[in-house]
Amino acid sequence: METGKKTVLHSAIPVPLVRKLLHRGARSHLARIFAKAYPVDVARLLAMLGWAERLQAFSILLEECDTAHVSSILSEMAVEDSLALFERLRPTEIARLFSEMAADDATFLASRLPDPLAAEVLALMEARPAAEVRELLVHEEQTAGRIMTPNYFALEEDVTVSEAITALQRRSEEYEMVFYVYVVDKRDHLVGVVSLKKLLTTPSSVQLKRIMVPDVISARTSADQEEVARLVADHNLLALPIVDDEDRLVGIVTVDDVIDVLEEEAAEDLLALAGVATEERISTGAGRSLRLRAPWLLINLILAFFASYVISEFKGPISRLPALAALMPLVAGIGGNAATQTVTVMIRGMALDEIASLTWVILKTIIVGAGNGIITGTVAATVAAIYYNDLWLGVVLASAMVITQIMAGLVGTLVPVGLKRLGVDPAIASSVFVTACTDITGFFSFLGLATLLWNLLKAG
Amino acid sequence: METGKKTVLHSAIPVPLVRKLLHRGARSHLARIFAKAYPVDVARLLAMLGWAERLQAFSILLEECDTAHVSSILSEMAVEDSLALFERLRPTEIARLFSEMAADDATFLASRLPDPLAAEVLALMEARPAAEVRELLVHEEQTAGRIMTPNYFALEEDVTVSEAITALQRRSEEYEMVFYVYVVDKRDHLVGVVSLKKLLTTPSSVQLKRIMVPDVISARTSADQEEVARLVADHNLLALPIVDDEDRLVGIVTVDDVIDVLEEEAAEDLLALAGVATEERISTGAGRSLRLRAPWLLINLILAFFASYVISEFKGPISRLPALAALMPLVAGIGGNAATQTVTVMIRGMALDEIASLTWVILKTIIVGAGNGIITGTVAATVAAIYYNDLWLGVVLASAMVITQIMAGLVGTLVPVGLKRLGVDPAIASSVFVTACTDITGFFSFLGLATLLWNLLKAG
Repeated sequence: METGKKTVLHSAIPVPLVRKLLHRGARSHLARIFAKAYPVDVARLLAMLGWAERLQAFSILLEECDTAHVSSILSEMAVEDSLALFERLRPTEIARLFSEMAADDATFLASRLPDPLAAEVLALMEARPAAEVRELLVHEEQTAGRIMTPNYFALEEDVTVSEAITALQRRSEEYEMVFYVYVVDKRDHLVGVVSLKKLLTTPSSVQLKRIMVPDVISARTSADQEEVARLVADHNLLALPIVDDEDRLVGIVTVDDVIDVLEEEAAEDLLALAGVATEERISTGAGRSLRLRAPWLLINLILAFFASYVISEFKGPISRLPALAALMPLVAGIGGNAATQTVTVMIRGMALDEIASLTWVILKTIIVGAGNGIITGTVAATVAAIYYNDLWLGVVLASAMVITQIMAGLVGTLVPVGLKRLGVDPAIASSVFVTACTDITGFFSFLGLATLLWNLLKAG
Repeated sequence: METGKKTVLHSAIPVPLVRKLLHRGARSHLARIFAKAYPVDVARLLAMLGWAERLQAFSILLEECDTAHVSSILSEMAVEDSLALFERLRPTEIARLFSEMAADDATFLASRLPDPLAAEVLALMEARPAAEVRELLVHEEQTAGRIMTPNYFALEEDVTVSEAITALQRRSEEYEMVFYVYVVDKRDHLVGVVSLKKLLTTPSSVQLKRIMVPDVISARTSADQEEVARLVADHNLLALPIVDDEDRLVGIVTVDDVIDVLEEEAAEDLLALAGVATEERISTGAGRSLRLRAPWLLINLILAFFASYVISEFKGPISRLPALAALMPLVAGIGGNAATQTVTVMIRGMALDEIASLTWVILKTIIVGAGNGIITGTVAATVAAIYYNDLWLGVVLASAMVITQIMAGLVGTLVPVGLKRLGVDPAIASSVFVTACTDITGFFSFLGLATLLWNLLKAG
């Protein structure tokens, strides 16, 4: 892959250069660099700077660069970083930035501002963008209504192709980008869609209703953003029309926002499974990281005490046969791994809505658990039996591993399903419960079997 | 969210209905359902059917439905499922399907066929699509050259707007969808880009070079697909132009393919961190699941033996004070959790290229590890000291937890970075090594400290 030649023909802004210019106070030089760069590249640069440098760079942006450009940069930044910068701004400045921002981005940021400040900013914004933001704020977070943009292009059915092109030319400043021409009836009901290419390649007197594709895939404002993203991704759309409860077209969700939703949801699943809060990134400060992670570790600790209690109940056998203490982490450890495998496959399958039959999944999971229990149990038992010269110790170990891995499969399947039915995000809560279960099962089955078969063991 | 009303205005194909019709042999009824449905919905339906039903449904598709429709359905299916169906087809049938498929999808499937069959199928395909597939097969897997499509629309700089529109109208059947008009010089070098909207809203005599955006973001055919996806996602593009080593335009990667790449990479990270092979899904059969998971569990088992060996070296202290056996899983367990948290944040940050300073990250990680070690250690020590009525046992426990969690932070940071430098995917290999390290550190520090401070413990 590394050919010595750049494979991506696009340059990031060099961090050391910016640092040097900041230290020299070369404001106009920096302003030129920022103005020429793509918003996402400036956003990424800011994320890599320390807090003092970031404030300095942001003040240059605010004072020397175009407001629309600064708004786009803010839209590309992590929301926590944007909010931290807003704390240094006057409400009028925030309002000026929001007025130039895409409505969905401004809405998202406004919803994260403290209520009184948000109200003040909305009152100070230009009338039209303020109205758009208020409109979106009516809808619940993480729904289609919150992430849609009201800047779509819709025409009525009996409009001709040439009229459509004229309308598009006349109103072109309103739209950053036109994805499709939507066709509506007299009462704004969505009835069809026409691609720009179709518009260009159809004789000018034809009416839109003759060339439109009817039965447009759409979603209501109340649809979950994940469902919306799935529709766009599955059907390779550039935008999805959003309708209200009376099926009137009220907005579109565009593919770039869908990518953000998909990346956000994927990151959430990944982080949640590992017990990390969604907002933690590499750049998160130590204090905040500590506060974000400690609760998860404490919950784990509380559950781990149950497993510890199980072990303490077997202190007699352990003190007479310390090999039990050395081998028991194998049972619980491999059980925990097997459980994590199952939970992860389940979480992903549930996200893609792939469970056709839960009974089949449970049966499969028992077979896989038993099979892997037998494979790993046999290997572990052989090593242990030889090392400790105790055949029955091996038998106890293998049996406990089979039991624990069947349990890993069962709880790994049922806990995510159960949590989802209870309305809890399975990615967040599953792995704590599941590994606590496998720990307890592992220790109890291993030490319990050893006690039951005590007379057969070398120590007995 | 649940209002009783459907929020997504689009219906999946009902599986029970299809099953009933299959059992009745109602082929033409099923053919009508399949023909009317979106490709992705038929693909999802097939994934939910058993193997025998799937074969039956696919034979109906092949015999009764339009080849282009069947090709699109195959493009939407999991690659393993498509390949399994191909085993039942004659090379001529595969060639017919490939000829109708998007070049990038046909290339991907062709690359997964056994070599002799792939050659035979290519020879049987229509000339033009076969040439396109051969062209893409030249490039390495997972590069821009492999996932691009050669169906882009490019014109020379001095072409006027009206000529451009005429060209678009004349050649419209070639393009499924036009995203942008690319502008090239006489030798096919990419020099600019024009949006369709711009084309529609510019007077017809203006030359493209006057309205094009120069400095187009692009990538070489050798660029990694992940880099390509990141560019498209970061810059909210609908398509990214791909150039050869002489900077000549040779294809585009479209946003729908970028979504597939992003979802594939996210799934890979999620699954790899949990020790699950990328190809495993909920629908994967028990035998295959078992084979895919067993190697990972065996590697874990081997590493777990090292931890077990550490414990066995302390059999004396354990047999005299079995509370050690009961408490040691707390140290290793919380250490393992802390390590997983760190690894996950690192993997995600590395994927987004967010590490500005490794030294800073390591320092932060030590602080967070020490901080969380102190918090969880204090809680655990208090409970243990009271339960076992042994203050020094608590002190040993807390100290071991601090040491282990600092180690968790260090290895959680350094192992992914090190693996990446070695060219190994850190998501796959990190968690095995890291948790083995924390287990060993946990057991060794706890039991070692207990032995050192033996005279202070109640048992001493």
